[in-house]
Amino acid sequence: MACCGNCFCCRCCCSEGETRTPEELTILGEIQDEEDEILPRKDYESLDYDRCINEPYVELLEGMDNKKAKKYEAVRWMLMFAIGVTVGLVGLFVDFFVRLFTKIKYTLVADSLQQCIDRGCLSVSLLELLAFNLTFVFIASVLVLVEPLAAGSGIPEIKSYLNGVKVPGIVRLRTCLCKAAGVLFSVAGGLFVGKEGPMIHSGAIVGAGLPQFQSITFKKIKFDFSYFRSDRDKRDFVSAGAAAGVAAAFGAPIGGTLFSLEEGSSFWNQALTWKVLFCSMSATFTLNFFRSGINFNKWGSFQLPGLLNFGEFKCPDEDKNCHLWTVVDLAFFVLMGVVGGLLGALFNCMNKSLAKYRIRNIHPKAKFIRVLESLLVAMVTTVVIFAASILLGECRDLYSPTTHNTTLSGSEDINSTIRQFFCTNKTYNDMATLFFNPQEAAIHQLFHQDGTFSPVTLSVFFLLYFLLACWTYGVSVPSGLFVPSLLCGAAFGRLVANILKVKLGMDIYPGTFALIGAAAFLGGVVRMTISLTVILIESTNEITYGLPIMITLMVAKWTGDFFNKGIYDIHIQLKGVPLLEWETEVEMDKLTANDIMEPNLTYVYPHTRVQSLVSILRTTVYNAFPVVTENRYNERDFMKGNILVSNNIHFKKSSVLSRAGEQRRRCQSMKSYPSSELRNVCEERIATGGEGEGGEDLLQQMLERRHAPYPNLYPDQSPSEEWSMEERFRPLTFHGLILRSQLVTLLIRGVCYAENQSSATQPRLSYAEMTEDYPRYPDIHDLDLALLNPRMIVDVTPYMNPSPYTVSPNTHISQVFNLFRTMGLRHLPVVNAVGEIVGIITRHNLTHEFLVAKLRQHSISV
Amino acid sequence: MACCGNCFCCRCCCSEGETRTPEELTILGEIQDEEDEILPRKDYESLDYDRCINEPYVELLEGMDNKKAKKYEAVRWMLMFAIGVTVGLVGLFVDFFVRLFTKIKYTLVADSLQQCIDRGCLSVSLLELLAFNLTFVFIASVLVLVEPLAAGSGIPEIKSYLNGVKVPGIVRLRTCLCKAAGVLFSVAGGLFVGKEGPMIHSGAIVGAGLPQFQSITFKKIKFDFSYFRSDRDKRDFVSAGAAAGVAAAFGAPIGGTLFSLEEGSSFWNQALTWKVLFCSMSATFTLNFFRSGINFNKWGSFQLPGLLNFGEFKCPDEDKNCHLWTVVDLAFFVLMGVVGGLLGALFNCMNKSLAKYRIRNIHPKAKFIRVLESLLVAMVTTVVIFAASILLGECRDLYSPTTHNTTLSGSEDINSTIRQFFCTNKTYNDMATLFFNPQEAAIHQLFHQDGTFSPVTLSVFFLLYFLLACWTYGVSVPSGLFVPSLLCGAAFGRLVANILKVKLGMDIYPGTFALIGAAAFLGGVVRMTISLTVILIESTNEITYGLPIMITLMVAKWTGDFFNKGIYDIHIQLKGVPLLEWETEVEMDKLTANDIMEPNLTYVYPHTRVQSLVSILRTTVYNAFPVVTENRYNERDFMKGNILVSNNIHFKKSSVLSRAGEQRRRCQSMKSYPSSELRNVCEERIATGGEGEGGEDLLQQMLERRHAPYPNLYPDQSPSEEWSMEERFRPLTFHGLILRSQLVTLLIRGVCYAENQSSATQPRLSYAEMTEDYPRYPDIHDLDLALLNPRMIVDVTPYMNPSPYTVSPNTHISQVFNLFRTMGLRHLPVVNAVGEIVGIITRHNLTHEFLVAKLRQHSISV
Repeated sequence: MACCGNCFCCRCCCSEGETRTPEELTILGEIQDEEDEILPRKDYESLDYDRCINEPYVELLEGMDNKKAKKYEAVRWMLMFAIGVTVGLVGLFVDFFVRLFTKIKYTLVADSLQQCIDRGCLSVSLLELLAFNLTFVFIASVLVLVEPLAAGSGIPEIKSYLNGVKVPGIVRLRTCLCKAAGVLFSVAGGLFVGKEGPMIHSGAIVGAGLPQFQSITFKKIKFDFSYFRSDRDKRDFVSAGAAAGVAAAFGAPIGGTLFSLEEGSSFWNQALTWKVLFCSMSATFTLNFFRSGINFNKWGSFQLPGLLNFGEFKCPDEDKNCHLWTVVDLAFFVLMGVVGGLLGALFNCMNKSLAKYRIRNIHPKAKFIRVLESLLVAMVTTVVIFAASILLGECRDLYSPTTHNTTLSGSEDINSTIRQFFCTNKTYNDMATLFFNPQEAAIHQLFHQDGTFSPVTLSVFFLLYFLLACWTYGVSVPSGLFVPSLLCGAAFGRLVANILKVKLGMDIYPGTFALIGAAAFLGGVVRMTISLTVILIESTNEITYGLPIMITLMVAKWTGDFFNKGIYDIHIQLKGVPLLEWETEVEMDKLTANDIMEPNLTYVYPHTRVQSLVSILRTTVYNAFPVVTENRYNERDFMKGNILVSNNIHFKKSSVLSRAGEQRRRCQSMKSYPSSELRNVCEERIATGGEGEGGEDLLQQMLERRHAPYPNLYPDQSPSEEWSMEERFRPLTFHGLILRSQLVTLLIRGVCYAENQSSATQPRLSYAEMTEDYPRYPDIHDLDLALLNPRMIVDVTPYMNPSPYTVSPNTHISQVFNLFRTMGLRHLPVVNAVGEIVGIITRHNLTHEFLVAKLRQHSISV
Repeated sequence: MACCGNCFCCRCCCSEGETRTPEELTILGEIQDEEDEILPRKDYESLDYDRCINEPYVELLEGMDNKKAKKYEAVRWMLMFAIGVTVGLVGLFVDFFVRLFTKIKYTLVADSLQQCIDRGCLSVSLLELLAFNLTFVFIASVLVLVEPLAAGSGIPEIKSYLNGVKVPGIVRLRTCLCKAAGVLFSVAGGLFVGKEGPMIHSGAIVGAGLPQFQSITFKKIKFDFSYFRSDRDKRDFVSAGAAAGVAAAFGAPIGGTLFSLEEGSSFWNQALTWKVLFCSMSATFTLNFFRSGINFNKWGSFQLPGLLNFGEFKCPDEDKNCHLWTVVDLAFFVLMGVVGGLLGALFNCMNKSLAKYRIRNIHPKAKFIRVLESLLVAMVTTVVIFAASILLGECRDLYSPTTHNTTLSGSEDINSTIRQFFCTNKTYNDMATLFFNPQEAAIHQLFHQDGTFSPVTLSVFFLLYFLLACWTYGVSVPSGLFVPSLLCGAAFGRLVANILKVKLGMDIYPGTFALIGAAAFLGGVVRMTISLTVILIESTNEITYGLPIMITLMVAKWTGDFFNKGIYDIHIQLKGVPLLEWETEVEMDKLTANDIMEPNLTYVYPHTRVQSLVSILRTTVYNAFPVVTENRYNERDFMKGNILVSNNIHFKKSSVLSRAGEQRRRCQSMKSYPSSELRNVCEERIATGGEGEGGEDLLQQMLERRHAPYPNLYPDQSPSEEWSMEERFRPLTFHGLILRSQLVTLLIRGVCYAENQSSATQPRLSYAEMTEDYPRYPDIHDLDLALLNPRMIVDVTPYMNPSPYTVSPNTHISQVFNLFRTMGLRHLPVVNAVGEIVGIITRHNLTHEFLVAKLRQHSISV
């Protein structure tokens, strides 16, 4: 069993493993400092998305008729609605306080500025602003210290979770509280961060927590609702919650649904889509209802869809020749897509270096260093904002200031957010208008301001913003990336529009170019496709922007992918999460299941003594064990059957792969290309004949321990040094798969029978009892098993998964991958043509890095 | 092998099968006239969506590096673009001519009316209108005679295809031509039909045909592009084409994508979504580009998104208290959803009875009867339109006729389509405005006309339209259902708005109610969910309608589902298509794979003589054959292994199911509940000991033939009457699956070797050679195999699929179903714990009807 948790093994051998080749390291899942690449960590586990239909589950089903099933279905719908409403309320909370704090801050500082312009005490205003910002950012940082997982946007974590990776602690209530409160302060603190990513993360946590009616942080909140307490249902609710988060953040329910479809597609359940859309709609309209009520005092109307919206793009009625865009503009959009892709790639590259620097130099140090970094960023940002607003702006004419106040959906008139710093009555300070405003207001300005911005201002703004946003993303405060990217890109787009309109005299609509610029840069940074297209269309509420946005995003993604990955994928990679892509590359089909599976198995028998089980559980870190019987005695008989006389023609059953045969093949292949942990087994086996110089090689010790972990219970079967390869890897007939959590539960509950009794006397557990400890099953090392008689026998067959999906050893990788990803598997046993288990495949055997390493080995050995 | 094509078998036994019980009929897939229910027909085949990775394919892969793969990927993108553009152009073509013909017709008739009102010669005008309409409908009917598949909306067929059912002829060029031209004439002929369904069908055909660069109708159009010539790629392109069809019809690219996701979700490939969206966007914007160019002469602008759009819903600027909808309205929307669901259920019920009547009484008769029916419908429709317009209308005041001409996206001003028949200058005839206009114009009137319609007019209009539309759908002309349903529902919604606004004096926006009414009725009829929500949102270009539309559709669907299925599902069922639902019901998990599999197998050996292959192919209709070897000789040895001494505890390998054991179990279960085709085998076996009174029971004959179809080639192995059950169902080790088409190709190309030679001398076929005859492989009966030496031997192992997905016999139905549906399988072998094939599962074993019958059997026998 290759699963995860080799981490223990890896760590011990790596401390001495300086001589290992890169390939070995790849297979072992280690950090290659030389290449500065972080490989998937083995301690990340998959979710148990696939149903384990064992006897307790079947019993549960027996009591389930269609009426009861419909009841559960109705409960699901209500939960979806509840999640949507809650996410909407969280969004409302964040939005309300961000607006409140920002308003207080800007009002006070602007007043002080007004006075100081006359009295020449600008430094006082600066200090006031600094005091506000540093306080807010300090609070945000402290919240992140409380719960480190609240840092960043949370999208990488949610993406990992939806992909099927269990990221510990990511969906806990404490994370949600710290994140929601933290983002409020980091946005109010004037940092160049958005609140959209954290909203999505908060939504996902609401989705995870609400249907469980329990919280690990507050242990008292606990109701009994066992039916939904499985990884499968939890993940479904998380995807709905994340979608609701997107829906609330952008007012984009369809985009939200597609987001969780795009990110969580690994195991998409069709019937869920409709519920997810409903949940997203609930979130959007809850938020809309309350915001419209609070802001306009028009309760019952729906006028403010999302936290972020782009206002209405609209040609003035009187201008019949005005078009939002024409076919000619498409060519420019493609070019802007290319530039956006390049800029995004640069952003990602810089941010990646920064993140690596932080991992290496800041994270190991005391935690307060991180707070200091946040404060430093806040200080620099504040000073830049202040200085740029005062010193670098130009005074521009207000273009027909009364005609086009058509931002229906925005809460304020477009001209209410212009800043006049030092400018005379009919003009405004363009730099201050962009910098000295909440980011959303600045985006609105770039999209809808008919007055112009000077090219110099836009360039300087873009440059400063780009650098500061890049520095900020990764600082330990909750921080989204959408709004800064949009603002940065909008400045770029507006710059292009300026050049085209003013310098070349083209008849274009500048707002469209600002929007396309924003899309291009955001697309270049995050590289999302379908969902981002739809989110942007929904945010503009203008279907006709579909084609230009899509083409821009497509070009930006292709350009960016030429250089590096999207920012979220980069951070996922830096965390070492074993993410599965959408598909494998065509080349990978040169490999088959037996090339990538793990042939060393730790297994249990259908009836096993308690002492053996405990010993297996204590000495391994695997999360599932195949339940097997040995067909050792009739093996030779059976092998005869391998050459069959059929139709008078000798036909070699070439597809029957035995574990021993595979092991021998691998050893031979390793000899000619000596790298991988297998070499050790093989060389030891072949050269020393099993002397077992364990002191020299910790890995070897681990391998030994895997096979002889329990006391010498069966004298005739215990692994012995004299065993041949055939004996060591003897054929095992596969009967089912049992999870570590299930075994632990069986032991805790004393499910076993005495040697002299029938196995029917063993107590039976119900489904509810089996899942009672979900999601945190006790650790075997914490258990006091003194009450259990070690000679008792456990019959695991009623509790194992008797019919997991399996593949044959010669299945090609694309098929293995599709099965694994689509069905949301955690362990995929490889079973040969005569029903013997020959290996097991987990997520770690299917990561891109592992496959590439295996392919390299394969092509060398071929 | 249970697959399909039992049709032959069924037909012969059914002619004598009067005595069969309903359960038997269910399992055999027969029409139960007593219950008036049509069961899935066995002659529908699944698509080969799963890849068969055999040696030719691996060879193809060897020559494939990532660069080449990227090239193919680029070609795919280009094809998607080409499909989108072509679908857009088809839409343009249809739209242009419909508009042209309709315009000519109405202009001429209106002129004549104008003159006749004075001169009192209304019958002349009626005759003129009749002449137009009958001519157009006649042309449409004749086109359907040419290609009967062009009748109807085509959505049931496309839904079946995307679900994975091969519907013969459905994606042929001839069908496309007849459908596109036919719908043009049936719409122009004034029938109550829409052009949206046929657009979707045409789009799907373009998707299927374009990447093949070949047509069966025009044999000369044929290029060589073998890479895309598989069911897998074809289905992907079809789903893109269908999405493009929706996109063009409604200007809804996202809705189109979700449509093909919702309908085709059985095997959704994530990477495809993005391409499908691109294809849809291309279609929308191609259409938009040309229509804007042609209609407004503004080439390069994009102002007319889809064939159908709903105009702009917008409160007048001066009215600050106007809201499109408020939270209070939601309650009414829910009620309207209920009523819409009821009306839709009534519509479907009536239409179903009508369709059954047609199947029984019209279809068997001469084809021209169908033409006559179309003409009759056209005549009645015309007379009703004419009479109602003249006689039943009221003159209503034009409400502030100059203020609100805000239908930006509609090509005409809302008041340009009002009709004044007999009314004075400032008033208009409300009935004529609805009836005497193209349907799209009438929908616009109901959505945007600020003037009122009298409640009586709306009621009468609704009733007439409902009845006529119900009659029309199913007549043999190409006919969509979307527009008539929308119009009908809009009238209902407007009626509700009238009552609320005028009678109760509520402050509502009538257009919203008309829209919601349209959604409610359409939802009640078609019962689509996600995609319809998005399509309607996109058609209105107003995101804020998301929640009301969604809630209405949800309620309408739930209400309707209480009574019957959606109209498309009804027609699919009437055609007997074995559609797979999204999920199985929870109850079904009481069954396992061995309950539903087909244990009677026709198999081939890895090396088989030509004469045996020919005989198997000629005497069976199966489409795939398991490749097996017999482990007959060591069976007894092996069975010993079934009771294993492990850990000193006797453990029964209960999961090892043998075919003979399963057959015995079934026979016993049948004896206690005697119904199913199995009874025959069993009774014959048990009672007569194999006397074979074949003359009495044709089914029995068929069963015999299945097992002894070929000359007595292997004297020691041929099925003999003396065989015991164990011998007849002897254990077979499973090695792979080979398709009928592959065997036929091998025979045609003479892939075989002589007895005295090595199998290595057998010629090898490349991937291109294997797929050359796609999609129509020759029939074995048409082949002249005189040149082949029947004693030659074919080695099928290089060409079989060596690693299809398999399940174990005790896998529960939900898991089997998910695997089958998600992976798009056609045959799913059931393999027991020791690698023996014990049965096979096809689509027909997973249809709802079959599962229900099996569950009933199961609960009786338990």
